[in-house]
Amino acid sequence: MKSEILATGDEIRSGALIDSNSAYIAQHLERCGVTVLRHHCVGDELQILTEALIDIAERARIAVVTGGLGPTIDDVTTQAAADAVGKTTMLDQKALDSIEDFFKSRDRSMSSSNKKQAMLPEGADPLYNPVGTAPGFCLDIKGCLFFFLPGVPYEMKKMLKEQVLPRLKAMQGDQRRFCKVKTISTFGLPESTTGERVEEISDIFPELRLGLRASFPDIQIKLYAEGTDENHLNQQIDKAAKWVLDRMGKKAFSVDGETMEAVAGRLLKKKHATIAVAESCTGGLIAHQLTNVAGSSDYFQFSGITYSNESKIRVLGVNPDTIEKYGAVHEETAKEMAMGAKKLVGADFGLSTSGIAGPTGGSDDKPVGTVCIGLATPEDVFGYRFFFPFPSRSMNKSIFAMTALDILRRSLL
Amino acid sequence: MKSEILATGDEIRSGALIDSNSAYIAQHLERCGVTVLRHHCVGDELQILTEALIDIAERARIAVVTGGLGPTIDDVTTQAAADAVGKTTMLDQKALDSIEDFFKSRDRSMSSSNKKQAMLPEGADPLYNPVGTAPGFCLDIKGCLFFFLPGVPYEMKKMLKEQVLPRLKAMQGDQRRFCKVKTISTFGLPESTTGERVEEISDIFPELRLGLRASFPDIQIKLYAEGTDENHLNQQIDKAAKWVLDRMGKKAFSVDGETMEAVAGRLLKKKHATIAVAESCTGGLIAHQLTNVAGSSDYFQFSGITYSNESKIRVLGVNPDTIEKYGAVHEETAKEMAMGAKKLVGADFGLSTSGIAGPTGGSDDKPVGTVCIGLATPEDVFGYRFFFPFPSRSMNKSIFAMTALDILRRSLL
Repeated sequence: MKSEILATGDEIRSGALIDSNSAYIAQHLERCGVTVLRHHCVGDELQILTEALIDIAERARIAVVTGGLGPTIDDVTTQAAADAVGKTTMLDQKALDSIEDFFKSRDRSMSSSNKKQAMLPEGADPLYNPVGTAPGFCLDIKGCLFFFLPGVPYEMKKMLKEQVLPRLKAMQGDQRRFCKVKTISTFGLPESTTGERVEEISDIFPELRLGLRASFPDIQIKLYAEGTDENHLNQQIDKAAKWVLDRMGKKAFSVDGETMEAVAGRLLKKKHATIAVAESCTGGLIAHQLTNVAGSSDYFQFSGITYSNESKIRVLGVNPDTIEKYGAVHEETAKEMAMGAKKLVGADFGLSTSGIAGPTGGSDDKPVGTVCIGLATPEDVFGYRFFFPFPSRSMNKSIFAMTALDILRRSLL
Repeated sequence: MKSEILATGDEIRSGALIDSNSAYIAQHLERCGVTVLRHHCVGDELQILTEALIDIAERARIAVVTGGLGPTIDDVTTQAAADAVGKTTMLDQKALDSIEDFFKSRDRSMSSSNKKQAMLPEGADPLYNPVGTAPGFCLDIKGCLFFFLPGVPYEMKKMLKEQVLPRLKAMQGDQRRFCKVKTISTFGLPESTTGERVEEISDIFPELRLGLRASFPDIQIKLYAEGTDENHLNQQIDKAAKWVLDRMGKKAFSVDGETMEAVAGRLLKKKHATIAVAESCTGGLIAHQLTNVAGSSDYFQFSGITYSNESKIRVLGVNPDTIEKYGAVHEETAKEMAMGAKKLVGADFGLSTSGIAGPTGGSDDKPVGTVCIGLATPEDVFGYRFFFPFPSRSMNKSIFAMTALDILRRSLL
């Protein structure tokens, strides 16, 4: 079954608001075996909206539309649906009752404008909204079954799950198609090289489709399998994931979207080890990422964001002579920072960064994009230097932090 | 001039990725006086993509397409553009040179698959990509001028600003319409109360349109003005912004999108003051935000991410008796943390957070969402306690950090 998705509203059309509803709906339709062909967005103009509905009806068998069901004059979706089938709107008693119930259950009184929300196109089937005032409805427009849902994400999600997806599953019966997806996250190779390394997959697993996604700073390899035999799809995709993991080696750091910091944290926890961090150029990003993981207090002990040389010396105990001799951005300084953080709180591992995130502060010798990373393990200490050619401070902070966490991860493998 | 926007790629079509490019493009086209009629999204299937291009060409005079210009086999946008005009793709020497330059400037070697990116539809005009390997191009398809840009947001943004918008302005000549927007960022009131406080604006400035946008944790008040007389629009919108700032008082922290951390940093710099931070529950987010601002090394000296009690005592010199008596999450502990960080590196201000970001760790007395904040000024030290009712760790970290920075900002006013 082929489907299309339409988001309505001037806020989305004009770019004031990013449409996150359509991605959510697409994911759930595909998982339910309904192929999504296209998404669309139009504003609150009745004629353009009506044309878009007719357009979609010509190509798709299923459509999900969000937004424009509210009580104000710029909510025109219901009228557009009526126009698309050449019918009028009528008061739907079931819809009116549900709106009245909603207000009653919240001890609020219903305003007259809410009554407008119970006007549905003739022939429409109301969809109950348990968490808001706008009921949805479904309506056949020229052979395509349209589900009209509110634009408020929370309301839309609840109605999609409870009222749309079960109908779609029932409609498919024995013909139900499944869409499986597996994501392998990799770090350290450019997109083109990553693609070249796994391109044979289409020969080995001809039933699967490969997708690459650059989600800076990592590259995600996505495997898609579609068909009617769910067990077979799961087997195929698991086999293919193993093949990809094998091809990518240590460049692959996780399956199914686990973040680098979650992987590093999981490995620390498994070893019952703790970590202390010393950050200069990453400015707290490593600590922020590590502590985004729930339960990170089991292994994360401390990070010292030491921007100034003085704080490197005073807090971390870096030898002033080292900074004098090599400079703050140097493997030797990074090593002393990592050891200093580790020692300060008695952690098992120490990880440090010192570099130049830009936009200023670079030199010929150490241009913007240079980072030195120190790793102190229970037994030893290592220093690394990298150069990344990115133009922005935030990209540099991000790839510096990822590189440091990757070094930690590899040492824990 | 009427325009449409098309995002391509299976990740977006299938919902694995939320399309933020189209909103960005819509905003910039509208500001430039180009009306956006519709957005669309299709996957990586050549035929569907080609049909979408022809569809758009029938309605719009301008179109912007993102994605599918990469080096891999699932990048089919260039071929679709060629098919839409019934031409073949040809090696474009200028495009090839720019890709080679890109790799040379980064001391990397060009892979053979990147050469594919220099194949453009016959008759296309290449658009130089200064920050990536995929050149864009523009091409007339059935009377509609299409701009094809890469899907990587920072590449797209740079090319849109430098190469697309100037052309569109030139095309409009004397007929140019202007769309002005002014954003006032506020923090500390819910969306509904913010709306009520400024709702009279439509009586006082009837030419302007008001928009509210909840961009957690702050609320943005947006003022829109549209017309052909640029000076008049600027005057109106400036007057209205002053009115809004007056109504919102200290709850308004910036105009035109300056972040809370940039405002706090600017105020510190103006006072030639420095800051040290001590973070527990915010886990480095405050340091990360402060150091995201270029030039922050002028005032940011140090942050200690002290998750464990031991590190609060060892690194910041918090009195163990204080923690024993009051607990780690308490105004008194927060005050000692702020003073400790300030003293440790000799800064003028100290700012601290200690709280419970969740999902676990809460108690009846101090539920998830509780945060204590300490502020040490050159003269004094203050302790605060807040409770926020949010369900997620990342929302709590975010609003805790924002609240702390807001306390710092207000003390610097």
